[in-house]
Amino acid sequence: MAGMRATTIHAPRDIRVEQVPDPRIEEQTDAIVRVTAGCICGSDLWRYRGQNPITPGSTIGHEVVGVVEDVGADVRRIRVGDFVIVPFCHCDNTCPNCVAGVQSACVNRGTTQSGQAELTRVGQADGSLVRTDPPGPHLMPSILSLTDVLPTGWHAAVSGGVRPGMTVAVVGDGAVGLCAVLAAQQQGAERIIAMSRHEDRQRLAREFGATDVVAERDEAGIEAVKELTKGIGVEATLECVGTDQSIRTAFGLARAGSTVGFVGVPHGVTLPIEQMFGLNIGLRGGVAPVRRYLPDLLSRVLAGSIEPGRIFDLDVALDDVAEGYRAMDERRAIKVIVRP
Amino acid sequence: MAGMRATTIHAPRDIRVEQVPDPRIEEQTDAIVRVTAGCICGSDLWRYRGQNPITPGSTIGHEVVGVVEDVGADVRRIRVGDFVIVPFCHCDNTCPNCVAGVQSACVNRGTTQSGQAELTRVGQADGSLVRTDPPGPHLMPSILSLTDVLPTGWHAAVSGGVRPGMTVAVVGDGAVGLCAVLAAQQQGAERIIAMSRHEDRQRLAREFGATDVVAERDEAGIEAVKELTKGIGVEATLECVGTDQSIRTAFGLARAGSTVGFVGVPHGVTLPIEQMFGLNIGLRGGVAPVRRYLPDLLSRVLAGSIEPGRIFDLDVALDDVAEGYRAMDERRAIKVIVRP
Repeated sequence: MAGMRATTIHAPRDIRVEQVPDPRIEEQTDAIVRVTAGCICGSDLWRYRGQNPITPGSTIGHEVVGVVEDVGADVRRIRVGDFVIVPFCHCDNTCPNCVAGVQSACVNRGTTQSGQAELTRVGQADGSLVRTDPPGPHLMPSILSLTDVLPTGWHAAVSGGVRPGMTVAVVGDGAVGLCAVLAAQQQGAERIIAMSRHEDRQRLAREFGATDVVAERDEAGIEAVKELTKGIGVEATLECVGTDQSIRTAFGLARAGSTVGFVGVPHGVTLPIEQMFGLNIGLRGGVAPVRRYLPDLLSRVLAGSIEPGRIFDLDVALDDVAEGYRAMDERRAIKVIVRP
Repeated sequence: MAGMRATTIHAPRDIRVEQVPDPRIEEQTDAIVRVTAGCICGSDLWRYRGQNPITPGSTIGHEVVGVVEDVGADVRRIRVGDFVIVPFCHCDNTCPNCVAGVQSACVNRGTTQSGQAELTRVGQADGSLVRTDPPGPHLMPSILSLTDVLPTGWHAAVSGGVRPGMTVAVVGDGAVGLCAVLAAQQQGAERIIAMSRHEDRQRLAREFGATDVVAERDEAGIEAVKELTKGIGVEATLECVGTDQSIRTAFGLARAGSTVGFVGVPHGVTLPIEQMFGLNIGLRGGVAPVRRYLPDLLSRVLAGSIEPGRIFDLDVALDDVAEGYRAMDERRAIKVIVRP
């Protein structure tokens, strides 16, 4: 077995490209996918920055589109040669949780483990994978965004209860936050307040549908949003960061009776339960059920009604993946494509 | 000024009936109500047990029905002599939060301060008070339950997202929990699992619509409910206690993608955010917007379709209010009527 090139992480800020064993069919419901394009996720940065534990030498990356190279004996729907979109969370799409729309809690769930690599293994291939025509170069970034970042932003808006005509605030101007702005716009929000300090991200937020931008943070940011909303706060708040500070800001923006939709993986968060109880501010969200939203979002991309791929502003070869991490870590890039 | 008799609290377990000044119109939107009946709330027990701070000599009690004795100059809709139901949280019923159905976060909110007494002051009388014909003795308990306990249980079910056909669990077999069972039944739940160890409460839970009773607590209780639900958990969980233990139980019962509706005032609770995020279990609820639900619930009571007054199993004169507290504290009584 020749093995493949894959991104590995050894310690904080120690990203390498190494030869590792090829992934292979482990369960007869698996598929092996040859990666056409992968990307770097904001959640990869938690390990990169040493804020999550690291198993030295483990592969990293979980966002992939590519071509099916092998399938297990029990795979029926997906065939070798198919171009597929790989949701980062694998699911059989038939269990009670999947049927209830929570594919991220599938009883047979798995996660893509080598997304910045030449090959990756996908569990529950028939349930997980969504086939599409191989996209041309202009479409590719938007198709790639369907593996995680767009459905995650979309999930923030669904979880926050965005409805047509609403006033919505988005906390976080990373790629997920920007996708949450786009999601709120697509879901009919009338006013979308993007919390962003970075000019390039402010610009993209406006292009994605933000009607207002608030550059202030914390208490000053809350005050600014209260001023924009007659002192009442917003009707849905989309939390796309996951820190204690960002969660507190989100609850500070939320009006009484509204819901905070949260998709930023929580790190060191203590929820403000007294505020939640006293003002009836709900919290909903979590790991996005990508597979649930994928068909709808794919249609929107193919119809040209959304172009989420614009969040990618750096494109690196697999050998240069460490530079991609540096650029995202230093906020020089919003989101980075990695091509094997 | 002659003054009135009112229940006061001086220290943990030190409940007295004392002569205090009559309440009087403070704002021209106030009304003074002569109390026909009040009652003791589970939340009064937090102070009684020393788990909430006590201002020695302060009046206590916030559930009242009675007759309007005086109104401020700006009160238009409510008249002296009206028999009224007093929501424990006062509201103008016109502010943006009230219009959005969160009357408990009214910008002019107030709370009944002397509910176990001869007289009480009600703020925002036109917005707060709901008039009805003076009820006969059999109807009185059900009318009294509309001031807090039934709408609070109802709010748990609304917040937990109960829909027709659902499987619901109720954590807490106090008066609020029992009302939450009744609410789930009225809102169309098909299966209602009451968590209760006490035989008299189990019986009432079944009469209110519980289809299953689980007497086990904590992990054993969670296991028992999982067994009843094919290992998946329930579709809506109604948390009616407010302790860390009860909140953890509630999240343990909840299936992925569902919502915990919480109405027990939180005391020392740390929310399990990783579990909420990983399984997409939402949390909604808080102080019940009693005024919002009152007209509907009053209709159901007057039509005889519900009899929430059955939660009252002890009736004391105001002079015996301390015995009422003891009975509730020792769980000899579910809920106690107090008559001046």
